[in-house]
Amino acid sequence: MSGKIRVTVWNEFRHEIRNERVKAVYPDGMHTVIGEGLLETGDFEVKYAWLDKDPEHGLSEEVLQNTDVLVWWGHMAHADVKDEIVDRVQKHILQGMGLIVLHSGHFSKIFRRMLGTTCSLKWREVAEKERIWTVEPAHPIAQGLPEHFELPHTEMYGERFDIPTPKDVVFITWYEGGEVFRSGVTFERGYGRIFYFAPGHETFPIFRDANIRRVIANAARWAAPRIRREITCPSVPALEDIRTKPE
Amino acid sequence: MSGKIRVTVWNEFRHEIRNERVKAVYPDGMHTVIGEGLLETGDFEVKYAWLDKDPEHGLSEEVLQNTDVLVWWGHMAHADVKDEIVDRVQKHILQGMGLIVLHSGHFSKIFRRMLGTTCSLKWREVAEKERIWTVEPAHPIAQGLPEHFELPHTEMYGERFDIPTPKDVVFITWYEGGEVFRSGVTFERGYGRIFYFAPGHETFPIFRDANIRRVIANAARWAAPRIRREITCPSVPALEDIRTKPE
Amino acid sequence: MSGKIRVTVWNEFRHEIRNERVKAVYPDGMHTVIGEGLLETGDFEVKYAWLDKDPEHGLSEEVLQNTDVLVWWGHMAHADVKDEIVDRVQKHILQGMGLIVLHSGHFSKIFRRMLGTTCSLKWREVAEKERIWTVEPAHPIAQGLPEHFELPHTEMYGERFDIPTPKDVVFITWYEGGEVFRSGVTFERGYGRIFYFAPGHETFPIFRDANIRRVIANAARWAAPRIRREITCPSVPALEDIRTKPE
Amino acid sequence: MSGKIRVTVWNEFRHEIRNERVKAVYPDGMHTVIGEGLLETGDFEVKYAWLDKDPEHGLSEEVLQNTDVLVWWGHMAHADVKDEIVDRVQKHILQGMGLIVLHSGHFSKIFRRMLGTTCSLKWREVAEKERIWTVEPAHPIAQGLPEHFELPHTEMYGERFDIPTPKDVVFITWYEGGEVFRSGVTFERGYGRIFYFAPGHETFPIFRDANIRRVIANAARWAAPRIRREITCPSVPALEDIRTKPE
Repeated sequence: MSGKIRVTVWNEFRHEIRNERVKAVYPDGMHTVIGEGLLETGDFEVKYAWLDKDPEHGLSEEVLQNTDVLVWWGHMAHADVKDEIVDRVQKHILQGMGLIVLHSGHFSKIFRRMLGTTCSLKWREVAEKERIWTVEPAHPIAQGLPEHFELPHTEMYGERFDIPTPKDVVFITWYEGGEVFRSGVTFERGYGRIFYFAPGHETFPIFRDANIRRVIANAARWAAPRIRREITCPSVPALEDIRTKPE
Repeated sequence: MSGKIRVTVWNEFRHEIRNERVKAVYPDGMHTVIGEGLLETGDFEVKYAWLDKDPEHGLSEEVLQNTDVLVWWGHMAHADVKDEIVDRVQKHILQGMGLIVLHSGHFSKIFRRMLGTTCSLKWREVAEKERIWTVEPAHPIAQGLPEHFELPHTEMYGERFDIPTPKDVVFITWYEGGEVFRSGVTFERGYGRIFYFAPGHETFPIFRDANIRRVIANAARWAAPRIRREITCPSVPALEDIRTKPE
Repeated sequence: MSGKIRVTVWNEFRHEIRNERVKAVYPDGMHTVIGEGLLETGDFEVKYAWLDKDPEHGLSEEVLQNTDVLVWWGHMAHADVKDEIVDRVQKHILQGMGLIVLHSGHFSKIFRRMLGTTCSLKWREVAEKERIWTVEPAHPIAQGLPEHFELPHTEMYGERFDIPTPKDVVFITWYEGGEVFRSGVTFERGYGRIFYFAPGHETFPIFRDANIRRVIANAARWAAPRIRREITCPSVPALEDIRTKPE
Repeated sequence: MSGKIRVTVWNEFRHEIRNERVKAVYPDGMHTVIGEGLLETGDFEVKYAWLDKDPEHGLSEEVLQNTDVLVWWGHMAHADVKDEIVDRVQKHILQGMGLIVLHSGHFSKIFRRMLGTTCSLKWREVAEKERIWTVEPAHPIAQGLPEHFELPHTEMYGERFDIPTPKDVVFITWYEGGEVFRSGVTFERGYGRIFYFAPGHETFPIFRDANIRRVIANAARWAAPRIRREITCPSVPALEDIRTKPE
């Protein structure tokens, strides 16, 4: 027992293999760079899983039972994730496992499953500047972050973002091209906590940025299970005498 | 054009056929009694649909396009509702259609789809008394309701109810047997509004009760579409000059 | 009985008297122009009140009893509003009256009283461009508004805005100078509804803008009382037999 | 530096002096028994303050600067708390200090100040039984608590409780006499966290109950400052070139 939070970083891991531009930025896959950011804090044990790792996308029942927080990045192959694996991940989140969804993961099956909405948004890919404003400085996910920080080149994700009203809007982004976005938002579902964070386009080295790494590490600490427990629907006996009798 | 709100009351409609006790209470099906309660206000046009009405459960694309608010009662046959019909209903809710889920509909595919949780709860069927407290008297769904009202015989639904934090908790129930329940709760998903209301067990004449009818009619007015619009995920041009250039 | 919503527009009305630049924009006071925008919809009866109108700032008990929605603009003389008048306005809001707070009213006694926070923000006055994004297009306050609209010259109000988590964030603003702001936010307190809207600097003709007028009129419809009732703290008899006896 | 959370327990401390029945239950004051419950966990440093301790009610600027979490119990003398001390406590909460309000503290100046509402409720004092349901078992304040727990004798506090929609409803109470109550609710204001907990009537030994003590200790851990920082309203220079020029 290390006392560390056990994170599984899940990456689609196809862009980095098929696209030279992405491979140049993340030669060993985005997941390894996200994991590196977590490991440098000393607070996490990190494992990796990806779409084509095995027939279960690296997300067996055993892996999930031993995962405190699951980080999810996907983009071009959302449809290739099997529904039975989505069912399994959902079950573990509702029982207490944390979920962090990054960037294009907004359209993943698991994020849409958890929220019930389309999770649609506006987008544009012209390498513009993004400035992220810390709207809730006291939130654990904002710990140690400045009041605003920038990414020199980013893909724009703009409102309206079709999500339920978040528990907390921790970050709101300003884009050079004129849009805004609720870029860091939290949700609670069942016993589990969910954080969505918008930055993370595959052609920019965003997961090497110190502020971005801090946000993800903070989120992983915040999303670690508070309890982990099955959810049942039991028939229960009365706790008080029932004196009302049907006719 | 009547200017009336168009409600489709959907009922599983199997208990009333197979179970003598239920048939005695709702000889023509629960849906007709729910519809009767809506019609007596003069504010609604009511149509009916049920599980075995046709291969689409009476919920064709055309029916849903002409439905402002869908009322849902189901219990023993949730699994028989086809996934493609659930997809279709979800799409219409996100685009603006209202949804009212009654009683055992908490476990319906559509409610769980919209909320992302198990929607589990505790339950007990001993015909005990229920007292419903109006916690938000100013909410449109509480309009004209007293500060509390009673049902002489009810099925108990107790906490913890596995739902996301509601937008509003309009009613909380006290049970004779010792439990409490958030019995009237609202959600917003996409452009649509959702209301869940716990009373409505099939062996009691609950949908003939004046207060219950008022709640459902209020909810149907509240859930009527404010806008009705497709949700898209467009790529958009910049609104401002982009002066940041990638290296 | 006109069936119209009765709005009282309250204006500090000192800038327009003392400052030539403001007088040029609003020769008869900002309140008259705000009122004009409401009147052109045909849905409202409009009255006016201001700080120096009479010893009660035009907000007698009788005026408030006959006000459905109070609109508030103040800036340089927040401290001159008497605490007993603030008490009175608070009482009426909690009992059901609506409140719309505009621009620099974020620092008014009544807004801080209702929210319990400092309502601080960042600001800058360089006549920059503001683009307002409609984040909740289905909200009644967003009815008929485009997905974004612009003000050519505005005072910047930036995050962090020290308010409790709003009920709804209807609008988020993008500023030319690089900030973002939750510029249209709702709250509910007691039986009353509150809307804060950031635009409205005294040196620009913002209250003549068609989109701004539409927002304020929508908000006044939305904030109209649903119920209007005193709030009491009564001792009540038990509804059930108490069988537990103290030792 | 002990690394412990520094709690100041504030008690009105008049009932225990003037009323024999209360003195019998809490001979050294309720605050000492609340403090004892915190101390037995080993996680807290506890100090005490009370209304008549000194002209500042024991809440000097220095005391508050060295308080992480303030616990508040008051009842018969809310009006005797000086407004300037309420201002000071509010300032510290907004800057990050936690606040736990117990039982009749619902009507304290500081609680009403923070929430902006009357905080009214129904009440009855017949020593009835109360059963507290844990509605959010994953919330830090519910850690280690059973799904329900009881108090044999309590004062009834019933809905409607005039508070803004809480951040989380952690506990809901069932009363023998037929009411329900949102008995454990959280709020965030500024950088501070607030927890209200309904049990705690002065004539019953409720603060000696193990479950009640656990709730209060959990709440004190949860409400400890995440950041502590002044809130300002600065004028700031533009981060981007302003190219829009006023006419």
